[in-house]
Amino acid sequence: MSGQDPGDAAFISKNRLEALVDGVFAFAMTLLVISLTVPSIPKSRAAAELAPALLSMWPELLSFLIAFFVLASFWVVHHRHFHYLNAVDTPILWLNIVILIFVVLVPFTTNVSGDYSDVQIAVILFHLNLLMLGLLFFIQWQYLVRHPTLAGTIPIDLTPKQAVDRIITPLAACVGIALSFYSPAHSMWSYLVVPLCVRTIRWIRLKI
Amino acid sequence: MSGQDPGDAAFISKNRLEALVDGVFAFAMTLLVISLTVPSIPKSRAAAELAPALLSMWPELLSFLIAFFVLASFWVVHHRHFHYLNAVDTPILWLNIVILIFVVLVPFTTNVSGDYSDVQIAVILFHLNLLMLGLLFFIQWQYLVRHPTLAGTIPIDLTPKQAVDRIITPLAACVGIALSFYSPAHSMWSYLVVPLCVRTIRWIRLKI
Amino acid sequence: MSGQDPGDAAFISKNRLEALVDGVFAFAMTLLVISLTVPSIPKSRAAAELAPALLSMWPELLSFLIAFFVLASFWVVHHRHFHYLNAVDTPILWLNIVILIFVVLVPFTTNVSGDYSDVQIAVILFHLNLLMLGLLFFIQWQYLVRHPTLAGTIPIDLTPKQAVDRIITPLAACVGIALSFYSPAHSMWSYLVVPLCVRTIRWIRLKI
Amino acid sequence: MSGQDPGDAAFISKNRLEALVDGVFAFAMTLLVISLTVPSIPKSRAAAELAPALLSMWPELLSFLIAFFVLASFWVVHHRHFHYLNAVDTPILWLNIVILIFVVLVPFTTNVSGDYSDVQIAVILFHLNLLMLGLLFFIQWQYLVRHPTLAGTIPIDLTPKQAVDRIITPLAACVGIALSFYSPAHSMWSYLVVPLCVRTIRWIRLKI
Repeated sequence: MSGQDPGDAAFISKNRLEALVDGVFAFAMTLLVISLTVPSIPKSRAAAELAPALLSMWPELLSFLIAFFVLASFWVVHHRHFHYLNAVDTPILWLNIVILIFVVLVPFTTNVSGDYSDVQIAVILFHLNLLMLGLLFFIQWQYLVRHPTLAGTIPIDLTPKQAVDRIITPLAACVGIALSFYSPAHSMWSYLVVPLCVRTIRWIRLKI
Repeated sequence: MSGQDPGDAAFISKNRLEALVDGVFAFAMTLLVISLTVPSIPKSRAAAELAPALLSMWPELLSFLIAFFVLASFWVVHHRHFHYLNAVDTPILWLNIVILIFVVLVPFTTNVSGDYSDVQIAVILFHLNLLMLGLLFFIQWQYLVRHPTLAGTIPIDLTPKQAVDRIITPLAACVGIALSFYSPAHSMWSYLVVPLCVRTIRWIRLKI
Repeated sequence: MSGQDPGDAAFISKNRLEALVDGVFAFAMTLLVISLTVPSIPKSRAAAELAPALLSMWPELLSFLIAFFVLASFWVVHHRHFHYLNAVDTPILWLNIVILIFVVLVPFTTNVSGDYSDVQIAVILFHLNLLMLGLLFFIQWQYLVRHPTLAGTIPIDLTPKQAVDRIITPLAACVGIALSFYSPAHSMWSYLVVPLCVRTIRWIRLKI
Repeated sequence: MSGQDPGDAAFISKNRLEALVDGVFAFAMTLLVISLTVPSIPKSRAAAELAPALLSMWPELLSFLIAFFVLASFWVVHHRHFHYLNAVDTPILWLNIVILIFVVLVPFTTNVSGDYSDVQIAVILFHLNLLMLGLLFFIQWQYLVRHPTLAGTIPIDLTPKQAVDRIITPLAACVGIALSFYSPAHSMWSYLVVPLCVRTIRWIRLKI
């Protein structure tokens, strides 16, 4: 059988790839806390200056919370995709490794955008990172839909809620990039405002 | 079936959520060690000054030990709750993600309260973090009790020991906040004194 | 049944505790690399000064290697113990949490002893950390031997090799503490010399 | 039975060793992001200086990407090897622990070669680290091939693609070391150029 090559993924079980993905997600989510640097103040002045120093950290805390929730959401999406997957093939294997690169970059871009929350380039890096993750998960979904041998039971017609869920993070990232031209610091709010708007519109539609 | 939406949690198995929770707990408990910063002393003076520098780290070491034991205790409580759980639904999924945020914040608040052990605001941040974790686990328990389809075998009547266990950390956090108005540095001892008092009272009651 | 208390450990399966222990061991072993700090040299002088700066890191590298091998050995011992374990009870649960505290402290004491390799107190901290781990694993073994309901198939008579393996790290730590009174930097070699001596003696005995 | 010694590995299941290996790989791959240090610029000058500061980080980003892909590739190779493995014996156990040491060192050597991308010794450290990993995986493969009781179904004849895959990273590391004598910064590109060349040659051969 030495003439045939079964490919890289023939030896990777779905469980083992999930274990690596879960490990990297859990670690990246925990490593986000490193972006919250403890203010260094001389002991003599700490009593007076620590409270304002901690309050001035709110952009870092906001970046931390957004990054944590977005990573958690992508983790949920990953499980939804792998729920339908029967086996790992080589494109899925390497697509997941590229996804993990952008997951691992999140603590870095969160750190940059938290430290320089009013500098456009810093904030755009963060938005681009989340946009890339959104696009990669979109590619993964499309790949699964087009390969019925891999994921035979996957529904081709998305429910309206699923279709919306799938574009909510990329949409928020694009709105964030647009907003960053006006106010970098406020562009972060797009991750709160866009989901709220989308959900309100859906709720109004359901009522009518 | 595209008209119905099974919800986020329909694709998350209990095992996978447990794996993420266990991973985040293990990493957060290990990351606590980063709060113990190695003293930086010029090599020529290290022989004389390292011992006092290490001894002056005792507030950081105390914060580390308390945070480690409290996280370990919450990990035990989490397993007790998930022991009764049959399946993950959307509220449980997102409640656990909020719990993980406060787990991930523990290394940061431990670091702040260790570095500024005599500043009230630093110490209160730590107490509030643990209080929030206690409240979130209380909410999780109440949710399980009220949803028999999720956790049918859960005992509604707690044993006296379980009821006490459940309030011991929130109580210690509240006592810590109260003590911090008198002496921030000593408020940390509430996590040792409150459990000891509660256990002594219970032991005396059992004897009478 | 609310009058009876099944204890903390009744809800902890052996598998879940193993997962936490494996996670903390894997993370602590990886975190050791943080003790290897990249030398910071101005770019203009880096070409000339980086090589000697890297060479002068050998005490840090030695501490790193010793700590990695000792943690790996304790991980092997942990698996040997849990191989015999049928179920987790409350003392085993909390004993393991105390073991994990000292595992998590290893990156810190490795860091201290690597940075101040010629200061006795720094080196003794490292030796004491490993001594504590050795003692805690000895206690775990004794506990298993005395509780046949927990670990019924455990052999009470150790093989000579097992008995020696069990005391090799505590013995090396004690020799290290003794050596540190003469030369702190050289006391680290006890982790290489003691195992070699013990194995040579055993090998000679087998030949005679 | 106390006279016989079953060896260290008799108590280590293949699954548990895989779990440790997966954990260390996941953490080391995530820790790579720590090599990307956020530039520290005074807030007043950040708007003007952050973009060039981030652009000047491209050698660090390149090291990060190479290290991530190489570690991911070795993780794939590890699964291929363990796919054939029936049981863990003592040499495989300790060979894997030595492999993990060099995996854990990757974030350090990546950091050094990213920070001092134009210093030969820094870049050679990185190449040597990957060369060692390649050699250790080669030794693991040879050990499996020679021990049919451990891995009976392993194919002795490699497919041409597998044989090439196995030497691609060591070859790239050797080319990198050679290139570093001319230009340390450009030697990193060998990890992109060598695989491309090898794949082009194979593609041309298949066509002829």
